[in-house]
Amino acid sequence: MTAKQNIEEGVNFNPKFDSNGLIRTIAQDTKTGQVLMAASMNRQALDLTIQTGYATYFSTSRQKLWKKGEESGHTQKVEQILVDCDQDCLLLKVTVDAGQCHVGYQSCFYRALKKGSSKELEFIAEKVYDPEKIYKK
Amino acid sequence: MTAKQNIEEGVNFNPKFDSNGLIRTIAQDTKTGQVLMAASMNRQALDLTIQTGYATYFSTSRQKLWKKGEESGHTQKVEQILVDCDQDCLLLKVTVDAGQCHVGYQSCFYRALKKGSSKELEFIAEKVYDPEKIYKK
Repeated sequence: MTAKQNIEEGVNFNPKFDSNGLIRTIAQDTKTGQVLMAASMNRQALDLTIQTGYATYFSTSRQKLWKKGEESGHTQKVEQILVDCDQDCLLLKVTVDAGQCHVGYQSCFYRALKKGSSKELEFIAEKVYDPEKIYKK
Repeated sequence: MTAKQNIEEGVNFNPKFDSNGLIRTIAQDTKTGQVLMAASMNRQALDLTIQTGYATYFSTSRQKLWKKGEESGHTQKVEQILVDCDQDCLLLKVTVDAGQCHVGYQSCFYRALKKGSSKELEFIAEKVYDPEKIYKK
């Protein structure tokens, strides 16, 4: 096998972290198939996720490890960790309760581009919890 | 509204491109909910996607625009473009035929980390086409 074949067709898990030490990670609800969020992991976040069975990310805005739900309580129980062909993106299949997005929605993807527009969004979901009641101000 | 509220709770589509001019983009099968691939778009790729109704990405390995399926024929008809809370990730709901991954699988996510392992993958899908027959060698 060539190196490329080994990455694409092999069974060695060799996640490719970028120049910032991060790998893109998508969380998808195992039951509904809904894509919940996209975030990043560094090596330590990935190791913690594997070890604990709960999703831990690396917050690029806060520059620190971020156990999903540490503040909100909305954790992600990881059922399966998938990796893509070139191993530069992970897909977590997770079990969750209500409200995965800090804005109050079940998913971070609660808006879509309006048909026929390139500039205007429309809301396609309702809030499932009040973030002001959950996050400390 | 503050700038943050405007991004998170507003209806203005303001995709946040990173320092390389790229935005992370996920493609999800509208019918099955399967996550097919993760890629990047630059402004031009996004504009072309909106204008044509078919997914165009920016290939970071080839450093050029890449209309999905231009070589393989496996295009992605875009039904909906969703954006996440901080507008730094897009989610395309797409209609596809068989075989979205260049390795031969329906999805790029055809392997998962084995239960109890941090290093070994297992295949969770079968190939749906023979890439050697489709791609020029």
